[in-house]
Amino acid sequence: MFTVFLLSIGDELLLGEIVDTNKPFIAQRLMPLGLTVVGAETVGDEIEDIVAAFQRALKRADIVIATGGLGPTDDDLTNEALAKTLGCELEFRNDVMEQMAARLKRTVTSLPGSNRKQAMLPKGAQVLRNDWGTAPGVHVPVKLTEGAYQVAEVAAATKHVFLTAGVPREMKGILTERIVPFLEAHYPAARALVMKKCHAFGIPESIVGERIKPMMQAGHNPNVGTRVGGGVVTVRLVASAPTEREALELLQPCLAQTREALREGLFAEDDETLASATLAALLWNNKTVAIAESCTGGLVSAMLTEIPGSSAALLECAVVYSNEAKMRTCSVKAETLAVHGAVSAQTAAELASGIRIRAKADFGLSITGIAGPEGGSESKPVGLVYFGIASIAGVRTVERNYPGLDRGMVRDRAAAQALDFLRRTAIGE
Amino acid sequence: MFTVFLLSIGDELLLGEIVDTNKPFIAQRLMPLGLTVVGAETVGDEIEDIVAAFQRALKRADIVIATGGLGPTDDDLTNEALAKTLGCELEFRNDVMEQMAARLKRTVTSLPGSNRKQAMLPKGAQVLRNDWGTAPGVHVPVKLTEGAYQVAEVAAATKHVFLTAGVPREMKGILTERIVPFLEAHYPAARALVMKKCHAFGIPESIVGERIKPMMQAGHNPNVGTRVGGGVVTVRLVASAPTEREALELLQPCLAQTREALREGLFAEDDETLASATLAALLWNNKTVAIAESCTGGLVSAMLTEIPGSSAALLECAVVYSNEAKMRTCSVKAETLAVHGAVSAQTAAELASGIRIRAKADFGLSITGIAGPEGGSESKPVGLVYFGIASIAGVRTVERNYPGLDRGMVRDRAAAQALDFLRRTAIGE
Repeated sequence: MFTVFLLSIGDELLLGEIVDTNKPFIAQRLMPLGLTVVGAETVGDEIEDIVAAFQRALKRADIVIATGGLGPTDDDLTNEALAKTLGCELEFRNDVMEQMAARLKRTVTSLPGSNRKQAMLPKGAQVLRNDWGTAPGVHVPVKLTEGAYQVAEVAAATKHVFLTAGVPREMKGILTERIVPFLEAHYPAARALVMKKCHAFGIPESIVGERIKPMMQAGHNPNVGTRVGGGVVTVRLVASAPTEREALELLQPCLAQTREALREGLFAEDDETLASATLAALLWNNKTVAIAESCTGGLVSAMLTEIPGSSAALLECAVVYSNEAKMRTCSVKAETLAVHGAVSAQTAAELASGIRIRAKADFGLSITGIAGPEGGSESKPVGLVYFGIASIAGVRTVERNYPGLDRGMVRDRAAAQALDFLRRTAIGE
Repeated sequence: MFTVFLLSIGDELLLGEIVDTNKPFIAQRLMPLGLTVVGAETVGDEIEDIVAAFQRALKRADIVIATGGLGPTDDDLTNEALAKTLGCELEFRNDVMEQMAARLKRTVTSLPGSNRKQAMLPKGAQVLRNDWGTAPGVHVPVKLTEGAYQVAEVAAATKHVFLTAGVPREMKGILTERIVPFLEAHYPAARALVMKKCHAFGIPESIVGERIKPMMQAGHNPNVGTRVGGGVVTVRLVASAPTEREALELLQPCLAQTREALREGLFAEDDETLASATLAALLWNNKTVAIAESCTGGLVSAMLTEIPGSSAALLECAVVYSNEAKMRTCSVKAETLAVHGAVSAQTAAELASGIRIRAKADFGLSITGIAGPEGGSESKPVGLVYFGIASIAGVRTVERNYPGLDRGMVRDRAAAQALDFLRRTAIGE
């Protein structure tokens, strides 16, 4: 089994300024190659720290992929640190400079000096052309010589270090187009890894845990794990075998048990999300929807429209924060708002009916609630949300309460609940 | 200077299933205490790997904060691993069991066995009550005894290990209410750390880099860093001094230079975002807006409504994917759609005017473009987006092109551009 260690470089990560989305992307991309990510580390922009991190990473894995620190500014030190780790010089690469000039549509001599820095690579490095930004990716094959890792020819190398920019778009391009093809050729999967995921909405993790306990205790292959997020419980199964077919076969009994364990809540598998499963349910049943969002403020619509092809099912969405907008766009009665309030089952019902009729959709979906932090009362606390769904058969409403959650979480949970409600309606539950 | 190391535990992280948002949250929360995060590591659910990670972390920092692996299922091994690291036993804690029973409104004897597992803590650990979920936080003071870290009394301890659940809501509660108060009392900041951030939209990073180069080369205090994301360039300044006031003073000249360097693009500082700066500009100028979104599908609205108080400025948003919705809700003329197409400056202008008049808002904002992956043509490629902004003074439109970006990125960039356009309009640029 060949192993991978991921290194993320940048003070902005240690200062908590940004969330590292590169590591999960790389990990997912490498899994089908049969390569296992055994660990990941984050270091700041201090050269000694980066050198030490490279040394630790080279000890722990066959392949090291480092992101970040390749930019044009003075706090970008990854190439320098790798050169130091391997005891080699930095070398000015005219080919890199020419690529950058071509990309920026300038001449080599007119590039700012800051770009020149990006053309200084560890001596012996292979350039991974960057078609998505300026900093080239770097591939350095290494081998252990007299107790230290040194640059080697590919044929003689025992380990491989790859560097990419930290900007997700550039990282994705270099990983997918440059690094993965090399790894596929160089590490023909000794063992295939296959992962299956099952997602359920509305079942507590501890109940899922009880139901799948026998599987989790049965052993490490398939490996069974669970996680929760936004009301969704995911059970993950990973099997490894000499071939993909054998790994899939190994997975089958566990997968059947997992589906049974999640039965009433199971809404999708693998990379499907609540939004994509909901959209698929609408498209499969040839149904359209229009949405009136109050407290979720466009979130449900944004989640659905993220998916290509959503325009075939989502006819219109109205974010109707104000009472005026609720009346104007969804024909909510002034009397309903006056008697029951904007956050009520009655208003949810009229919103759903109103937007359905307005857009001539099969379903009307509405969400109205108190996301906080202000606006709560004793009878209608922060976290109280009403959902309405209208169809030709009439309107149904549901009440949910999310006590103790902050604004963002109330909105996230309410959006998930709205999608699940719509999905169940679309499949006729 | 006291140091912190962050450890994230869970196969779901190494498999790339989820993005780790806990590390940035913890790092940001610790900065005002004068504690420096020196590194972070991610490990899977193998007990030997977790033990080794605890050992490395204890070597590298005074404080170790580990998240994840405290759940009720069998792949949750953090307590066990910490006990093994420190050479102590796990101990059943009846007080923890009672807290969990009270929270789940059950009796201790009726709790599932899986919850019982969550009451097994390293012997000598202090319980950090979890009011946000079931798994208690854990605090283990340690000291080095004969070359190994062992559990100690707080008074004798030289280092501290904290464990919290990986669920962000529980982590945030335990960190903020339990861990931070201890750290504040135990490590009265020897040096204050102050961070300032300046955000600009629409200037390339390399130009920012050239302008702030002298500052970056001037030294490490203040430390100057840059990052880019979604068209926003952020310059980060961190100063450290014996007192907060001195750190702020140290920062001032750099801050002035940074503001000057970012001049034409500077839209906000510190924790402000494009959305919050835009909302603030609207509220400050007592202006309202209505939005018609096509390719961004509710994203701009969701970004604005994420902020408490947004309802005072955002009157209504319409997601108008279909031509019918564009005509019905925003009074776009059929002829305009037929002659110029849905993705055109003319349609953007009519969308902006139409939604403005409909909602009786000061400004109407529109976004219409081709997010892809389908729908592009030679004359109107994927990534082409038109923006319209209508006011009492008339309508302006802007065209932008985001070639080579995927659907999600085109939407993100277009949403950012729309917000910046609205913000500049609101402040009268």
